Amino acid sequence: MEYKLRILGIDPGSRITGYGVVEKEGSYLRHVLHGEVKPRKGALLSEVLVSLYQDLSALLKETAPGAIAVENIFYGKNVRSLIKQAQVRGLVIFAGASFGIPVFEYSPLEVKQAVVGYGRAEKRQVQIMVKAILKLSSLPPADAADALAVAVCHANFQKEQPI
Amino acid sequence: MEYKLRILGIDPGSRITGYGVVEKEGSYLRHVLHGEVKPRKGALLSEVLVSLYQDLSALLKETAPGAIAVENIFYGKNVRSLIKQAQVRGLVIFAGASFGIPVFEYSPLEVKQAVVGYGRAEKRQVQIMVKAILKLSSLPPADAADALAVAVCHANFQKEQPI
Repeated sequence: MEYKLRILGIDPGSRITGYGVVEKEGSYLRHVLHGEVKPRKGALLSEVLVSLYQDLSALLKETAPGAIAVENIFYGKNVRSLIKQAQVRGLVIFAGASFGIPVFEYSPLEVKQAVVGYGRAEKRQVQIMVKAILKLSSLPPADAADALAVAVCHANFQKEQPI
Repeated sequence: MEYKLRILGIDPGSRITGYGVVEKEGSYLRHVLHGEVKPRKGALLSEVLVSLYQDLSALLKETAPGAIAVENIFYGKNVRSLIKQAQVRGLVIFAGASFGIPVFEYSPLEVKQAVVGYGRAEKRQVQIMVKAILKLSSLPPADAADALAVAVCHANFQKEQPI
């Protein structure tokens, strides 16, 4: 029997956080689920973090991944949204680690190369390729697609060193 | 009897995180404790976050603060250390909120004005003034002093809107 690895990809956002689970068995890649967590409008940062932790905990219990993959933060953004995103990313890494699951990170370049084949792909191309690779019946929403993409990226590269 | 408010100030750092607890009763300010959390050398980010959460949980249970105060992130830093600090800050805010304690934020300018009287104070001046204000017998280490300073700042300003 082939070794089966379940990977949870997460795309932490200052507002929406995307997630996607894939299962790798040999060279076969299976889509498990994906979705997006959106805080209610006007939620405090502290509320966003607590409710995201609860959602991630439920997701980790439900899907029991063997690895979590997240993207590096892209430096080109404005500093304010970069700080917001990094705060959420810290919580996401903590959530995974608090369940004893190793967390791996990939650069946006690595993720795009893994799913589109080159590093300067547009968001839309990522959605289209993720749909094709995972044989989805419809285009996943942008942040869930990014999360699936980083999960696919880990399935291909399987870095050994967690963060 | 005067209303007593216990405030935990935290200075989240990409490496060292300082903390300090003060108690405000009327206009009287009392030092409770302070310290610094240092991850072991070579620790992974995920390990740093999990162990910091454990330390903060213990601190929150032990000191039972009614409010937590943290500084805004200072934009002047290099982006890499800013992202690291923001990841830790996200975890710190989550930790407080997960215990149901409101978290308040102050700018570095507000904090320095509260303890030194003007906004461009050096780190050393903050340590000296914190020692004087809280009648400490020795100079607190830099990151613990910053944490005590933001706690003193909240004691003075007591913003109403948590983050």
